[in-house]
Amino acid sequence: MVSAGPVHEALAALELVDHHCHGATVADLSFEGFESLLTEGEAWPGVSPFDSPVGIAVRRHCAPLLDLPRHAPPDVYVARRAELGWREVNRRFLTAAGVGTYCVDTGYSAQPLTSPAELAEASGAAAYEVVRLERIAEEVAARGVEAGEYAAVFRAAAEEAVRRPGVVAVKSVAAYRTGFALDPERPSDAEVTVAARRWLTAGGRLADPVLVRQLLWTAVDLGLPLQLHTGFGDADVRLHRADPALLTDWLHRIAGTIPVLLLHCWPYHRQAAYLAAVFERVYLDVGLALHHTGPTRAGVVLAEALEITPFRKLLYSSDAYGVAEFHHLGALCFRQGLAELLRRRVEADELSLSDALRIASWTGRDNARRLYGPPVSEPVRDPRGRPTRKV
Amino acid sequence: MVSAGPVHEALAALELVDHHCHGATVADLSFEGFESLLTEGEAWPGVSPFDSPVGIAVRRHCAPLLDLPRHAPPDVYVARRAELGWREVNRRFLTAAGVGTYCVDTGYSAQPLTSPAELAEASGAAAYEVVRLERIAEEVAARGVEAGEYAAVFRAAAEEAVRRPGVVAVKSVAAYRTGFALDPERPSDAEVTVAARRWLTAGGRLADPVLVRQLLWTAVDLGLPLQLHTGFGDADVRLHRADPALLTDWLHRIAGTIPVLLLHCWPYHRQAAYLAAVFERVYLDVGLALHHTGPTRAGVVLAEALEITPFRKLLYSSDAYGVAEFHHLGALCFRQGLAELLRRRVEADELSLSDALRIASWTGRDNARRLYGPPVSEPVRDPRGRPTRKV
Amino acid sequence: MVSAGPVHEALAALELVDHHCHGATVADLSFEGFESLLTEGEAWPGVSPFDSPVGIAVRRHCAPLLDLPRHAPPDVYVARRAELGWREVNRRFLTAAGVGTYCVDTGYSAQPLTSPAELAEASGAAAYEVVRLERIAEEVAARGVEAGEYAAVFRAAAEEAVRRPGVVAVKSVAAYRTGFALDPERPSDAEVTVAARRWLTAGGRLADPVLVRQLLWTAVDLGLPLQLHTGFGDADVRLHRADPALLTDWLHRIAGTIPVLLLHCWPYHRQAAYLAAVFERVYLDVGLALHHTGPTRAGVVLAEALEITPFRKLLYSSDAYGVAEFHHLGALCFRQGLAELLRRRVEADELSLSDALRIASWTGRDNARRLYGPPVSEPVRDPRGRPTRKV
Repeated sequence: MVSAGPVHEALAALELVDHHCHGATVADLSFEGFESLLTEGEAWPGVSPFDSPVGIAVRRHCAPLLDLPRHAPPDVYVARRAELGWREVNRRFLTAAGVGTYCVDTGYSAQPLTSPAELAEASGAAAYEVVRLERIAEEVAARGVEAGEYAAVFRAAAEEAVRRPGVVAVKSVAAYRTGFALDPERPSDAEVTVAARRWLTAGGRLADPVLVRQLLWTAVDLGLPLQLHTGFGDADVRLHRADPALLTDWLHRIAGTIPVLLLHCWPYHRQAAYLAAVFERVYLDVGLALHHTGPTRAGVVLAEALEITPFRKLLYSSDAYGVAEFHHLGALCFRQGLAELLRRRVEADELSLSDALRIASWTGRDNARRLYGPPVSEPVRDPRGRPTRKV
Repeated sequence: MVSAGPVHEALAALELVDHHCHGATVADLSFEGFESLLTEGEAWPGVSPFDSPVGIAVRRHCAPLLDLPRHAPPDVYVARRAELGWREVNRRFLTAAGVGTYCVDTGYSAQPLTSPAELAEASGAAAYEVVRLERIAEEVAARGVEAGEYAAVFRAAAEEAVRRPGVVAVKSVAAYRTGFALDPERPSDAEVTVAARRWLTAGGRLADPVLVRQLLWTAVDLGLPLQLHTGFGDADVRLHRADPALLTDWLHRIAGTIPVLLLHCWPYHRQAAYLAAVFERVYLDVGLALHHTGPTRAGVVLAEALEITPFRKLLYSSDAYGVAEFHHLGALCFRQGLAELLRRRVEADELSLSDALRIASWTGRDNARRLYGPPVSEPVRDPRGRPTRKV
Repeated sequence: MVSAGPVHEALAALELVDHHCHGATVADLSFEGFESLLTEGEAWPGVSPFDSPVGIAVRRHCAPLLDLPRHAPPDVYVARRAELGWREVNRRFLTAAGVGTYCVDTGYSAQPLTSPAELAEASGAAAYEVVRLERIAEEVAARGVEAGEYAAVFRAAAEEAVRRPGVVAVKSVAAYRTGFALDPERPSDAEVTVAARRWLTAGGRLADPVLVRQLLWTAVDLGLPLQLHTGFGDADVRLHRADPALLTDWLHRIAGTIPVLLLHCWPYHRQAAYLAAVFERVYLDVGLALHHTGPTRAGVVLAEALEITPFRKLLYSSDAYGVAEFHHLGALCFRQGLAELLRRRVEADELSLSDALRIASWTGRDNARRLYGPPVSEPVRDPRGRPTRKV
């Protein structure tokens, strides 16, 4: 794609805030191991994750960063990856991403991943932490607690977790656990005690509707921005129950309190855009969908997400997990998709160049800085371009 | 966008029927006042409604009509607007819209708006009235009525309202009040009485499911076309309950009676298109979404809406409210989006020019005339181009 | 559209597997009869099905095959069709389709249609049969059965039906009967007996939720690929209940058993793509939507369907019913839409040519062969290009 001009240049030069991602793997990966991280499904016999839009995008856009030709074959790609070693692979993709600040969800790791500090080290960026509340709750349960004290102990544990240095937000995966068709009211103490007793007896992960509601309301009490998984994810999601429109009653009740960040959203990004357009403190991104749909479709998804979204309400995230390719690809898809969309509008005189440049800076960086406040907003590099702050 | 040729010319010359809009403000607006009318949300600190697709479209396409350069800054725009005064502003946008006939929903006015007669006066077009049934019902309740007589009194009031000169349709905002996941059956008299008693005692707006059903069935009895808000709107909507597909059972029951016009529909315009394709008397438009998504996306929304919609089933509406910019922008987005879509198909020899011209006339004007009957169909201008009929 | 090059050529030369279609009519059609087969709705006064995207596509792409000019008027088109006679019309469209193998749903015929053998004869292709399970169940009921034996008798009848030569899959129209918001568990024998007693007493078509669940679980027992209608169809569907995402719980329970093929899917093709991406044995197509949206939009629908779908998971089907125009148009829309999508990606160097060619072969033919196994995979033509196997 021949695409140049000031908007592309501005986005190429912009140090993004990737406001929601995970760590990169800290081990060399076998072919099967790499394949299994390429997909939200699994690697099945005869259906290689390389044979999907994201696989095509990796071979096209990541191979050159490993000194391979574009569209290198999968086996060559993974062999070269192993040859370079995970440290060098991570370094290459994380620096190529051009991200100035990462906000890292530390609450899920099916395999060993970089910590925020390690991600910062490998990328030369600053890295902050996002605390996953379900994990806090499950740790509380694992340590043992009386049902009648669960709410208070969970809340205290969450308060303690968010006081850790570098924590800028909390996250919930309620979408996976119950979906959003929940009673929007805060549950009573008695209800929580009954539900906690049931859960603490039965064990397993937190998936009780009352306790999920209590978790969401605890997030309101904590006062930090709340990131919510919505839409696309792995087989554990019930997609139709992860439609963010189902949150509307709850959003009405919490209006005026915390910012709520709707993550991923695809294929409900238009629904998310509606919420961002009518609720003051609701924001969205199309992370995960960017690299999974790849550069040829990410611009379309962004254009749909931006149909009615106020330009101060869209953020960038990669939702990269496991392979640093995704930290890079997410950024590439965002830059390329948004730049092309804005360039065409400027070319058609539907948008002034100065407005286009503002929209690029806002969505790629400034909206996140404004929302997450001081830690993310302060300069993260010294004049020689070296990082000055890390968690 | 360089876009000329016979289809663009035909649509530019076509006097549209804007079959669903509201009045324009009859007061000069402060900056904040104008901003608050730009958005379906509110004007929030640091998130100006000008920084959204519709704000960009206003600065691009409306500024020149106020003698300002394209992309004029917001403060300059609103200052010039005030300088000209609301009468002149309304006159400029309403005449620029190129609309021959407006059908005006008179049932909602958070601020003083032009009446249909005043809209006709300012635009040189004809204007007809659409009666909002919830307003009739709430006036009945406000005047005082016995629960057992509510149904009959409401019906009589609705019958009287639609006999007013110039009334061409009724409208319901059931989408806002209960959503469409309603029992499709006509409620019994006893049920209505019980529900009316509850509502008349409790007060507030009409939002009882039984009474909303009774209202929709009263619309069937009235025999006029029924406009239904669906999809996109303000924060009061639960988007997923405003999916028009939820109306299917009811549409089966009322088949063969009144025409039903699904308004707005975005992001469920494909669902609406399905209904229009399989029910004889179901129609749709993508009003509101046209100016809110703006000229760069309205064509995409129209293309999606038209994927399977019979060409006699799509109508034009702006759903403009408050600022006459929207009466103009809606028309501009419709003309530009549809013309470009049709032009490309003609150019690719996928559509004959004569079919393209028919589709343009049908959707922009003739489908509405056919559906709303004599008042909207009769000539509305004399040979000197002056309006000959107004309500 | 000037569109050439190796991808277009490869798709033009590829003998497609149309893995889900119906027969073509075996009678000459009146104007009204032809119109009524053009639409999923009906032919209504003043709203000719010719005045819709599919009508435009027929006049553009089918008229030349009847020796008429492109965009021939509807009356001329239908007159010429009658002049040629249904045998010749079928022969022309079915051979033009370039389909090597048809899988024919024999369970629905509101009018006399070609059998699979007759379709094979007319097209020079091989044809296999897809057994509609609701029809088997209703035949069992019609023959008379004790409620307590219904499950066993239905299962035995289904087993017998799929042993017929040429049967490659079963199909369910559960989407039409109950929708997919069903209890995902296999119903108990006692539940089935109670439900069967109710149904056998009341009569009518199979639409009881317990019996529909029992039917779906019987499909699992049969072991053949299961085709499921999802999304778009006639007025009998409740679109929102035909969203394939509603199947997620059931898909979890049957994981590792039979392949499930989500048919049509529009407007929920992104939801279907998600399921295909995360469940090993879930596949999708966008049949029906291809010819109904027509060549100008089918490429967009395909692009959306392919956003995250693994390339081994998309299949081609026409879902053509009644008029052989649709067997041809479906293939044309698929070839043209997919070729253009792939060509652009190759041109932008986002996809290698060899990958593009693989994706074309997989989706157009090989995925179906792999999935339906030996009958569909074996060579169906002798060296002189004549069919060697037919059912």
